[in-house]
Amino acid sequence: MNATIKVGIVGYGNLGKGVQKAIGQNPDLELVAIFTRRDPQQMPANSGARFEHISAAEQYIGKIDVMILCGGSATDLPEQTPQLASMFNTVDSFDTHAKIPEFFQEVNKAAMGGGHISVISTGWDPGLFSMNRLLAEAILPEGKDYTFWGKGVSQGHSDAIRRVPGVKAGVQYTVPVEEVINQIRSGETPELATREKHRRDCFVVAEEGADQEQIRQTIVSMPNYFSDYDTTVTFITQEELEAEHAGMPHGGFVIRSGVTGNGSKQIVEFGLKLDSNPEFTASVLVSYARAAHRLSREGQQGAKTVFDIPLGYLSPKSAEQLRSELL
Amino acid sequence: MNATIKVGIVGYGNLGKGVQKAIGQNPDLELVAIFTRRDPQQMPANSGARFEHISAAEQYIGKIDVMILCGGSATDLPEQTPQLASMFNTVDSFDTHAKIPEFFQEVNKAAMGGGHISVISTGWDPGLFSMNRLLAEAILPEGKDYTFWGKGVSQGHSDAIRRVPGVKAGVQYTVPVEEVINQIRSGETPELATREKHRRDCFVVAEEGADQEQIRQTIVSMPNYFSDYDTTVTFITQEELEAEHAGMPHGGFVIRSGVTGNGSKQIVEFGLKLDSNPEFTASVLVSYARAAHRLSREGQQGAKTVFDIPLGYLSPKSAEQLRSELL
Repeated sequence: MNATIKVGIVGYGNLGKGVQKAIGQNPDLELVAIFTRRDPQQMPANSGARFEHISAAEQYIGKIDVMILCGGSATDLPEQTPQLASMFNTVDSFDTHAKIPEFFQEVNKAAMGGGHISVISTGWDPGLFSMNRLLAEAILPEGKDYTFWGKGVSQGHSDAIRRVPGVKAGVQYTVPVEEVINQIRSGETPELATREKHRRDCFVVAEEGADQEQIRQTIVSMPNYFSDYDTTVTFITQEELEAEHAGMPHGGFVIRSGVTGNGSKQIVEFGLKLDSNPEFTASVLVSYARAAHRLSREGQQGAKTVFDIPLGYLSPKSAEQLRSELL
Repeated sequence: MNATIKVGIVGYGNLGKGVQKAIGQNPDLELVAIFTRRDPQQMPANSGARFEHISAAEQYIGKIDVMILCGGSATDLPEQTPQLASMFNTVDSFDTHAKIPEFFQEVNKAAMGGGHISVISTGWDPGLFSMNRLLAEAILPEGKDYTFWGKGVSQGHSDAIRRVPGVKAGVQYTVPVEEVINQIRSGETPELATREKHRRDCFVVAEEGADQEQIRQTIVSMPNYFSDYDTTVTFITQEELEAEHAGMPHGGFVIRSGVTGNGSKQIVEFGLKLDSNPEFTASVLVSYARAAHRLSREGQQGAKTVFDIPLGYLSPKSAEQLRSELL
């Protein structure tokens, strides 16, 4: 019996809570402590976890095998990942696609300096979707790939709705256009902008006495966020919002339509349908924490992405077991 | 500019021909020669390839980076893979699931002895489907996975039809049961035997004067092959067979339905819809030939499976390019 992998969580929002739950589903991992910028004394006592202030992380060197970083990509991770990668193996879900190359360089330097492994940008996009884009492109070099997101809540678009005057609360769902997906699944390879692939459905609670038609117009004509999309606005009550829109579902598809030989159509598709986006992302992070620990024990170091790690490292099963049970 | 990867093909059936075409789609690979047990002089001159008798393989040591083995799993590969793995890096599509552990041991010994890399059991099942079974299981340890095959031609079942007295020609399609797939996609996790997940559709050309009802009865009541399945038999003419059933389509799905947190349903699905099964399998083999060459250049050796190889090795793009374009 191997010793359990000792894990720390940094950040206790939806993602951090999801990681805590996912660790509970993986008996080879053990949660040591949750690190937060808040006052540890004020954290929920019934959560069954030890809370520490983030400044105490250093005291856990040698006691934690992998830190799972659950902060946001805008300001938390660019600061936290390099800092913690110099002290621990880390896993994060940095998802600002355009800044990944720069982030990789920074984190790689810190991780190499400390002799640690730092798996960046895991989750499902970047993450599982990226893996499927790579895999399908490598196998079908002549082809075209499509990524669809949804149906799911977009935090940025929901925030944009809530800033509209007269709006009390609201949530926005990004919805992939079914007809376009079916077109691609049948072997067509249309040129499509993101706005042609997705619809935006808004559910809005208006303040009492607010002009609903005015709110609707403001939303559907909002540049960048909505004006280029087929956008619907549905007014609901606060009770309906709480009863029917409290979850964080998401999902999507990566489809590659390619050609081999003398025009044989070949279609590769990967899809997710998630009741809880943060819990699923957390589950991916936990698998990569296992991989980070193993890579580190083999003496590897530096920043890694999902492209660099053999799939076998994600599973608690031995290579022999994987070959006989899953190959 | 790197030198091209020099490839040899062993066996020139449908799969070998597919590999030849796939190499043509990948400019970083170059076909050196095709090895066959037949008389090389009798091989098609218009194929644009150099043919050699398989016994001449040894003369290509140092001239070929990777041999792609395109023989069958029943008798060819158990003999050829260990033999060639002692001389070359190899890739094969050994697909007798139950014998993989034993095959791996044999090939590993031969490859280690020669200092080569031997990637075994690639393709789509085993291969891409196996990767998705592992990935989804590692991420969602509490769940259940389902593999569906088809719609596609089953060679073994088509052969069984053709052995029935009065049958001139025939083809059998394995068809996944759509209602069951939809049930799983909606979050249910039924216990299902293979026969409950698949239907068998037979298209048969009867000999003149043969008793069609007798043929139908013999097929649908055939043990192991058809008696446990919902089987249909449709009689067609030789012309219809040639016009509509000459292709080798296939495909299928791997679906895992799992649960996280307090019961959030999470569904991961991977699917293929292939016009040409051998051409697609060939394209997977070619990607893994690239990976085998790279692993070998790094000094690695021994037998490997799709579980052991980072996805980045499959692509001709550099790690930097992959991070900026596909992550």
